[in-house]
Amino acid sequence: MSAVPIAIVGANGYSGEELCALLARHPGIRVAAVSSRTHAGRLVGDVLPRLSGWPGIGSLSFCDSQIGALLASGAEFFFLALPHGLAAEFAVPLVEAGRRVIDLSADFRLRDAGVYSEFYGARHPAPGMLADAVYGLPELHRAAIRSARLVASAGCYPTSILLPLVPLLRAGLLAPDSIAVCSASGVSGAGRKAESSLLYAECNESFRAYGLPKHRHLSEIEQELSAAAGSPVAITFVPHLAPMTRGIHTTTFANLAAGVEPDRISETLSAAYADEPFVRFRETLPDTKHVVGTNFCDIAVRYDDRAKRLILLSAEDNLVKGAAGQAVQNFNLMAGFPETTALLQ
Amino acid sequence: MSAVPIAIVGANGYSGEELCALLARHPGIRVAAVSSRTHAGRLVGDVLPRLSGWPGIGSLSFCDSQIGALLASGAEFFFLALPHGLAAEFAVPLVEAGRRVIDLSADFRLRDAGVYSEFYGARHPAPGMLADAVYGLPELHRAAIRSARLVASAGCYPTSILLPLVPLLRAGLLAPDSIAVCSASGVSGAGRKAESSLLYAECNESFRAYGLPKHRHLSEIEQELSAAAGSPVAITFVPHLAPMTRGIHTTTFANLAAGVEPDRISETLSAAYADEPFVRFRETLPDTKHVVGTNFCDIAVRYDDRAKRLILLSAEDNLVKGAAGQAVQNFNLMAGFPETTALLQ
Amino acid sequence: MSAVPIAIVGANGYSGEELCALLARHPGIRVAAVSSRTHAGRLVGDVLPRLSGWPGIGSLSFCDSQIGALLASGAEFFFLALPHGLAAEFAVPLVEAGRRVIDLSADFRLRDAGVYSEFYGARHPAPGMLADAVYGLPELHRAAIRSARLVASAGCYPTSILLPLVPLLRAGLLAPDSIAVCSASGVSGAGRKAESSLLYAECNESFRAYGLPKHRHLSEIEQELSAAAGSPVAITFVPHLAPMTRGIHTTTFANLAAGVEPDRISETLSAAYADEPFVRFRETLPDTKHVVGTNFCDIAVRYDDRAKRLILLSAEDNLVKGAAGQAVQNFNLMAGFPETTALLQ
Amino acid sequence: MSAVPIAIVGANGYSGEELCALLARHPGIRVAAVSSRTHAGRLVGDVLPRLSGWPGIGSLSFCDSQIGALLASGAEFFFLALPHGLAAEFAVPLVEAGRRVIDLSADFRLRDAGVYSEFYGARHPAPGMLADAVYGLPELHRAAIRSARLVASAGCYPTSILLPLVPLLRAGLLAPDSIAVCSASGVSGAGRKAESSLLYAECNESFRAYGLPKHRHLSEIEQELSAAAGSPVAITFVPHLAPMTRGIHTTTFANLAAGVEPDRISETLSAAYADEPFVRFRETLPDTKHVVGTNFCDIAVRYDDRAKRLILLSAEDNLVKGAAGQAVQNFNLMAGFPETTALLQ
Repeated sequence: MSAVPIAIVGANGYSGEELCALLARHPGIRVAAVSSRTHAGRLVGDVLPRLSGWPGIGSLSFCDSQIGALLASGAEFFFLALPHGLAAEFAVPLVEAGRRVIDLSADFRLRDAGVYSEFYGARHPAPGMLADAVYGLPELHRAAIRSARLVASAGCYPTSILLPLVPLLRAGLLAPDSIAVCSASGVSGAGRKAESSLLYAECNESFRAYGLPKHRHLSEIEQELSAAAGSPVAITFVPHLAPMTRGIHTTTFANLAAGVEPDRISETLSAAYADEPFVRFRETLPDTKHVVGTNFCDIAVRYDDRAKRLILLSAEDNLVKGAAGQAVQNFNLMAGFPETTALLQ
Repeated sequence: MSAVPIAIVGANGYSGEELCALLARHPGIRVAAVSSRTHAGRLVGDVLPRLSGWPGIGSLSFCDSQIGALLASGAEFFFLALPHGLAAEFAVPLVEAGRRVIDLSADFRLRDAGVYSEFYGARHPAPGMLADAVYGLPELHRAAIRSARLVASAGCYPTSILLPLVPLLRAGLLAPDSIAVCSASGVSGAGRKAESSLLYAECNESFRAYGLPKHRHLSEIEQELSAAAGSPVAITFVPHLAPMTRGIHTTTFANLAAGVEPDRISETLSAAYADEPFVRFRETLPDTKHVVGTNFCDIAVRYDDRAKRLILLSAEDNLVKGAAGQAVQNFNLMAGFPETTALLQ
Repeated sequence: MSAVPIAIVGANGYSGEELCALLARHPGIRVAAVSSRTHAGRLVGDVLPRLSGWPGIGSLSFCDSQIGALLASGAEFFFLALPHGLAAEFAVPLVEAGRRVIDLSADFRLRDAGVYSEFYGARHPAPGMLADAVYGLPELHRAAIRSARLVASAGCYPTSILLPLVPLLRAGLLAPDSIAVCSASGVSGAGRKAESSLLYAECNESFRAYGLPKHRHLSEIEQELSAAAGSPVAITFVPHLAPMTRGIHTTTFANLAAGVEPDRISETLSAAYADEPFVRFRETLPDTKHVVGTNFCDIAVRYDDRAKRLILLSAEDNLVKGAAGQAVQNFNLMAGFPETTALLQ
Repeated sequence: MSAVPIAIVGANGYSGEELCALLARHPGIRVAAVSSRTHAGRLVGDVLPRLSGWPGIGSLSFCDSQIGALLASGAEFFFLALPHGLAAEFAVPLVEAGRRVIDLSADFRLRDAGVYSEFYGARHPAPGMLADAVYGLPELHRAAIRSARLVASAGCYPTSILLPLVPLLRAGLLAPDSIAVCSASGVSGAGRKAESSLLYAECNESFRAYGLPKHRHLSEIEQELSAAAGSPVAITFVPHLAPMTRGIHTTTFANLAAGVEPDRISETLSAAYADEPFVRFRETLPDTKHVVGTNFCDIAVRYDDRAKRLILLSAEDNLVKGAAGQAVQNFNLMAGFPETTALLQ
């Protein structure tokens, strides 16, 4: 197979940088363009010193993030590592021009433009394209991703929450109104934004909740949970900022549906993920240290027999399985590469 | 008032060291003895370099942790910063000799020796003394602490969990079977133990749950919650290790009791803590950074109107309000000092 | 003694916040005013949640940083925790109005306005007042500080570099042209500035040099070293940013002057600091962990017999002995309090 | 080329684990054996959860570290990730049996058994084999490594110190007696040892020097510097522990040789490393963040014109270019793979 030409739009954020680093190892692609409004004209290796010296990507220059230039690059697949709202401005013309898009933003994750408005505080920029988009969590929607023109790569918190819950809700094992979720994220999840609350001296030795009680990610989480349960599911979700650069750890509480034996939980998760290359359902309690730098999501389960409550635990790297790695996994499916290419080899 | 002679037994752990640092600022005491089996004969300031150069404590030498020597020191109050099981071996003869004891261990926190056996895996070392002991959380048991001979200073996780919940359970505002708790603790909470799981390279950039699903602290938490509710309460508790040295952050989920309006929660907590010097019930979300190095416990509340669930958030320094500071607060009550002495002045 | 009225100007930076925290423990003062241009009108405890609940300071409101209002507050001593350049705008009218000033900025640390221009890239804002100012490092200039109207509290790096070197240069024990210094600072040293290079995700797991080869602090370092040596001294200084919030560690290389025996070094430092309350010259190698939260500067020395080179090591808390604590120590001298008040008791 | 069978001896330390992770990506090898005395019989993926789920290595079991079993595995190349002293016990019989060895320990880095005794405090375990061993720093000894039977992979500190200095000493540009080095290492450099000084709560927010003034690595550093200079070189070396998991940053001071223009330094380093795939000589100041997880060593230079002193700065990942990555780079040379295989592709 000759190298597939790809482009990375908005490569200077944390997800974009990680995407460049992952794609630098991909044997089947050629980076036709890497763009940044801020850094157009500069060498990638100068802006992102970690990438300097890598064959290919390190010696490219950022082009401007202009549709015309991007189309002219000849890229067939476009990774959008842009803020929500802005991503749609690129996705629409690219898809209309026949290109295939992997969007890392939230713009096309929701099927309902009204929910988008409710959670993002603005009208959806391209409601007509929502029907075309596939929610980019391969473990849930692999077949649809393969043939999609536009994949809305799943978010970081949602991935860590959906992977343990969806198989259980599909099997009717949980009481849907009993779900409460506590997540802790590394600070890179907030992006490369110069805000004082994200300074080292503010985050180090600090643990704090934020975004309560209606974090934006709830919209896509509940969309997928409801689909799995076959009825509307509303959950409580409390994200926390932990003093680490990368990693998300999620602890989920739920009650079993009436009459369900606790053993069914392990059996169901074990069966669901036996053949998944990137989900490790294990006895060992998840630890962000085990997954950082990888595309794995680790899952474990415990049953609190005293309080009759299920505890699900999961961990992933927010920039890999929660962003750039997931995007590459989606791309591999779309482009016909083995799903683990550049991720597990 | 002439200086009250006190002794610190087992001063070389993290809680003991913090206790020495706090007491170094106490204007009403005199350190009659500071003991350590490991370091007997060495200067405190050599073993704990942070304390070197402090008038008094820094230039004392550790004595051996022998009852005879401790009694001979003339100390009237004894702080026990020892592992559970060992603390009782000191508490019993000290109390019997007429001294007053502030025990930082778990040995006398439970009223029921059977619960101790269940959670600590051993027979209680001195069941006959349990009736004398007062659970050392001043916000709950201030009057009893003042006159107690033996105060079992409350544990770190329990303090952060009990302070937000107890006033609400006392007022009957919560569904007692709905409580699930997620806590994140700094690594100092595990003590100064040379275990490979506590190494810097294992804990840094790591977030992980542990001790599931039946952590020892559940025993004292449920004892106090049940007392507040007037009926047995069982909760789910998931402690996590966060990559920070100090601090505990607790996020508690609960449902409101039938018919309770969400506004009652804030009103109740506000009233409960209006005059407490060390509980800050505020609108601001708690952050361990705001409390580290202080004896404060910060509390906030949010109501998730979508999922109809209450979220309580609290933060404290596990070594201060969760251990040494609480012990000093208890001591101040017992010895008749203003409660905030050496803590907030 | 009745309480001395003081004011803190620019209290919302890291040094200002630390100053508030230290002064909250000072039994001899009354905070007449605390100012901030950004936060005027807001409660100190709301802007700086760590200070909430402290008697006094926590319930004050920030006033605007206007000379008129500050003078009207009745404060006799003014702490300036402002950026360089701006501090002089306050220092001049305050001193002219008969108030006494402890300036934490660099504005009055240099005796020579030309050196200021060279290192700070701007004309000195008040060269006429330089002669009045005393360099605020008590261990070097205690007597002059006591009676000074304007004390320019010594900087963080300079304190850690001057304390080990000055006694040795005064005694003629070092080859002055042989001095090279490596310092590592916690990120709070850069202040509460929303710059992307100071974000958690940029600083964590990062160690890097910066400000090479002519850091601004060299000007005051060399001024004081030259005074100690009796002739001009130029050194090499490489500051590094370490992934920690607080603390400075300095490693200094120097050759012995011809004919000097290595033993003279320890003897000289030991004699110089035997009676200093805040300098701990010890055999133990300094560790920022031993000094963080204290006003101590720890010093040790090693001689490399193979390469015939002296190694001096020192550590301090950049926000305490390197800023706010030093300012309080200076204030205590100026106001006639015991030097250790609020710092070591 | 058919897959080359390799073995990893002592895979459960940090370097061994990193080696497994790197080799998991190597397309030209087959892991014939992975051994651990402690964990023999257990799955690699259970002991090192990060490696679970990786094709190949993750599902292997540790074998015991016995020569017979290792030879029987059929491996042609052996990586020894063992403590010094122990490594020689394996290297000798393996080399004698015709296998080729990449030793990550210090056992064969010195040509002179007497220097080994002096620095390691024990007789060299196999002095007769020192003449066969090649110092495994490819940038210095590439040709010899290709054909070596036994490569003593260079140490972490030495790599960061030698790469900037050797080209300059070879060219006679430095005054050899003027070299003083300050390094800061992440805590993983101390290995996975359960020592209390390496606990999270001891290392976090701590910066401290250690191993003064005669660190073991000085022996190999001076051996290679002396070879480069053509005469004995003794340097001062101060290693520090920084609160990070990985990374070494080195700051080196040196004076120029008489008559040397500062510009010669950049020219010489630029020429020396123009074609090296893993040395990035750049204008940007090195930052451990740029190199962690990679096999790069970044180098920059500054000249302090005021004090007439050269400042060399370098950064690497202590577990990659300082250990496992270097070992793979050496292996690639020995086995005839492109040098960057599994490291930069």
